[in-house]
Formats: sequence, C-alpha cells, structure tokens
Amino acid sequence: MQTLTLFDVQEAALRIKPHVHRTPVLSSQTLNALCDRELWFKAEHLQKTGSFKVRGAMNAALQLENPKGLLTRSSGNHAQGVALAARTLGIPCIVVMHEDASELKKEAVRSYGATVVDAGVTHLNADQKVQELIAQTGFTFLHAYENLQVMTGQGTQALELFEQISAPDAVLVAVGGGGMISGIATVVKALWPQTLVLGVEPERANDAQQSLRKGERVTLPAAPDTIADAVRPLTPGALTFPVMQRLVDDILTVSEETILEAQTLMMRHLKQVVEPTAALPLAALLEHKDLPKRLALFVCGGNWLP
Amino acid sequence: MQTLTLFDVQEAALRIKPHVHRTPVLSSQTLNALCDRELWFKAEHLQKTGSFKVRGAMNAALQLENPKGLLTRSSGNHAQGVALAARTLGIPCIVVMHEDASELKKEAVRSYGATVVDAGVTHLNADQKVQELIAQTGFTFLHAYENLQVMTGQGTQALELFEQISAPDAVLVAVGGGGMISGIATVVKALWPQTLVLGVEPERANDAQQSLRKGERVTLPAAPDTIADAVRPLTPGALTFPVMQRLVDDILTVSEETILEAQTLMMRHLKQVVEPTAALPLAALLEHKDLPKRLALFVCGGNWLP
Repeated sequence: MQTLTLFDVQEAALRIKPHVHRTPVLSSQTLNALCDRELWFKAEHLQKTGSFKVRGAMNAALQLENPKGLLTRSSGNHAQGVALAARTLGIPCIVVMHEDASELKKEAVRSYGATVVDAGVTHLNADQKVQELIAQTGFTFLHAYENLQVMTGQGTQALELFEQISAPDAVLVAVGGGGMISGIATVVKALWPQTLVLGVEPERANDAQQSLRKGERVTLPAAPDTIADAVRPLTPGALTFPVMQRLVDDILTVSEETILEAQTLMMRHLKQVVEPTAALPLAALLEHKDLPKRLALFVCGGNWLP
Repeated sequence: MQTLTLFDVQEAALRIKPHVHRTPVLSSQTLNALCDRELWFKAEHLQKTGSFKVRGAMNAALQLENPKGLLTRSSGNHAQGVALAARTLGIPCIVVMHEDASELKKEAVRSYGATVVDAGVTHLNADQKVQELIAQTGFTFLHAYENLQVMTGQGTQALELFEQISAPDAVLVAVGGGGMISGIATVVKALWPQTLVLGVEPERANDAQQSLRKGERVTLPAAPDTIADAVRPLTPGALTFPVMQRLVDDILTVSEETILEAQTLMMRHLKQVVEPTAALPLAALLEHKDLPKRLALFVCGGNWLP
C-alpha cells in the first residue's frame, strides 16, 4: 500500500524549507484559564499564503520534472499554495474554484499570478472542468489531498511543533479530505507515541467520523452547508483514509455555533485573525469537556476578513 | 524641568520585566510590496492586557510605597494596565471610565478584578468623580500620561525594538496624551539619533499637531469623534508636551476612512486583530506618500472585536 513515513516528512521539510515560513506557537494565559487547559496554537495562519496548504503544494511541485504548468481544484487555500508554488517554479497556473467560493480567496489566488476558472463551477461539474483543462493545457494536476507528496508536505508542520513544545496529551486537527491529519498523524505517532491524534469536523460535514466508525469511506449526500469552508469535501480521500484508520484516535464533531464562538475567542484572546475552519480544534475543546489537559491545536488558516 | 532619560527607561525595563511580555516584531512581504516599504510592526497588541499601557502602569505601581489601592481614569487600555498592576501588587483598584467607552474594555477591566465606575461619567465630570473617589478611598491615582514613571514605562517597548531590528529611517507612533511617544522618543533619539520620530493623530483629534505648530498646548473644543478611541484626550499633557517639543520630528494626521483601511490591511495581511488606534501608523503611510523606506510601526493595542 502506498503510504508516507516520518522519513518522507523529514525529507519534505528540508526540500520546502527555503520557500515556507517556520511558524510560531502561540498561547494565551487568559484562554488557558478560561478553558482550564494548557493550550498551544501552531500558527499556520501566519504561513505564506495564510495557510499550511503551501507546504504540501510546494513539496509536490518541487518534485515535478519539467512541468508546463500547474492546475488544481480547491476551495481556496490549496489554490493559493499551488499558485505560489507555480510562481516559485516560474510556470503558469490555473485554479478551478467553485463559483460560490470565498471572493477573498479567489482574489488572493489571482494575486499570485494564477488564473481562476469559476464561471458556473459547482461540486457537480468541477471535476469535468478539470479534466477538460488538463486535456487542453497539458498542465500537471495537483490534488489537494489525494497525493502522497502533498500529504507528506502537510506533515512538516508537526515536525516543527515537535521542536517547539514538549509532548502534549493530544493534538487537535481540522479534517476535510484528510491530507493535513494524515501528514500530522504520521509525525505525531512516530515521535510522540503517547499523544492522541484527534480530528475535528463540523457536525454538518462529518464524513470522516462516519467513515472511521463504519470502517469504509462514506460519502455525504450533498455539499455540506458549513461556515468552515475549508473542510467541505464529501468523503475522505482514498489515500488519506487508510492513514486515518491506522493513526487517528478519534474524530470529534462541533456545531456551527461553537465554531463561531471559538473563532471569536481566538480573535479576542490570541488577537489573531483566523478563518472559521481554523477554529475547529478550539471548538472541540468547548464542546467536549473530557479532553486531556495539555493540548496542541493546529490553526490551519487565516484567510478571512471580518 | 522634570523629564525622563534613557537610563530611567533602562531601569524601568528591568523593573517590569517579570510582569510583562517581550513582544515580537511582525512583518508581511505582501504588505511590504503593497506599500513599497520595509515595515516592522512592534506587536504590543500581544502584550499582557492587549496593549502597551501595562508597561507604564506597572512601572509606576511597582514604585509606590504601601499603596492602599490604585485608582485611574481611562478610555480602557490604561485601565486594564492599572487593574493588572493592582492585581500583581495584591491591592484593590477602581477605574473611572466614560459611560460610552468600549464595553469590551470595561469587561476586560472587570476581569482583572477592578471595579468600574461609569454611570453618568463623561469628559466633563470624570475628573470630579476621580477627586471624590480619591477623597473617599485614599487610593493612589495613576494618570494615563501625566506621570513620569508611566511615560518612562512606555519607553521600554522602544528599548526592546532596539534589540530586535537595525535602525529604521523613522518610527511611527499614535499620539493621544503623549505618554507613549514621549517614552519612545526618549529611547529612539538616544540610541538611533538619525531616526525620525513621527506621531500620528486622527484629523479629528489633532491637538498634538496644533500644539507643536503653535508652540503651546492647544485644547480641542470638544471630545473628538474618532474611531481611534484610545487617542481622545483634548490636549497633550503638561509633562509630555515639552518632551514632544524636544524630540518629535513631526505629527501627521489621517482620515477616519484611512484608519479603517489600514486596520483592514493589518487583519488581512498580518492576520492580526488590532484596534483602530493601532492602525494609525499604517494609515499615515497610506496617506503620506513621501515617508522614507524603512519604517517601524508601533501597534499599540488589540482590544477590539469584529
């Protein structure tokens, strides 16, 4: 079975190092007191492009041989990562985005020099549009999570965290397609074997929770209506799901209301602008009172404007 | 004449060190490109209480002999600083706040254990209220800027900056009563004599600009209606004005619209939650195109919720 190892992530970290930030770990005494926990926030909203996604995109792009251009489909953050990777390589980039994706994210993708294709694009026809464009351009398609090199790149944020804090009782990670948690879990379970790896999903987008409980990939009947716009895939990836089965201890879900409450707390006490998806880990803590004391929370992105 | 020196600030830095954060300096390549400048943001919104004000309050409070309690009048950030200083000393604290002050700031003051007195309090009667409370309680009054030890404490942020970056062409500082810029200018002119010290005020609250141009303290006719709620004093302080006359190179003013634009840019590119007053330095850069290339901007506070 194709999978990723700690060694792969270590190689990826060296590969992407010149092109990404080492992000800080933030904490707030007030927030710790409020939650009665010791919390560390891995601040990937301060990463280039405002999200961790550039790690995976860069790791994959840097291993291509003479690509003509890059092409992807994304709700926004992966798109920015691929766009920056293409600019770094000096090649063109096309991004297929849903017509209703965040205008802020579309604009950001364009600011990296990529072309956004969004007219009439929905969950239903996006893949077909991608296939047409691949045929027309010969560009290399970089999937947001169905790609081992992308998954591996996402793990590099956990490798940094390992150097920044001592072993927490658990790490909390937002789950969309599963690329982020696959990379992180690979590192955490290798280096901190006692640490729990917990995924967090909106109640309305609980495909990973359903899938892990059923032991097979479950597909949501329709695009989930959640404010956490970066975790809308309908089902875990074919490559990510086996990793999640092997390494993820549990998936927690949270309500839309709690996501907003958590986002507000992070703005108020950490003074950080984070997107709703990045508040999923703190939201889990607010709803699930039985979590252990020392927790690392991955803040996946900050592409949001009040 | 009573004034402050670099040596006083160095002593203050050692005195308050156990009780305040050393704040980071932030930058954004995107924002640098947008502004065609090299910008460093001294992140005092990440200071304890969400503002630099705790530096001055703590420096003054730690030098009191057997105080019964602390008492102050403030639009909010100094109040939080005094409240935390009182809690650190283990003594009670009363804060007189205008009835229309930010509810977020009132709540924060209460969260540090202080009592907020705000019923019916306005610009007109606040001083009388303070005098009554001093007579009733015997608490020590700590003015937000008419206090050399407070002014000295505010200078410690510039001392940190000196260790964090090389000499910029200019520093940009929001000006209310003048406590912050007095402390900062004292340090900057001693350690970086070639660096310009520029104050920034809202057009609607330009008492410092008028005063420096006229050579005497000018008092605004009424409480200024500005979104920058931390710079509403009607006139520069009697202690701060002579320091400003001696060490401040110029005061720039900005429109309300530009303040909001700058605040949005800081949320979007630095991913930081800052209050409108903290956006005054960047606003100055947006309106005054002739500023030099390498600029340090003091981000005074982050007590604001979208």
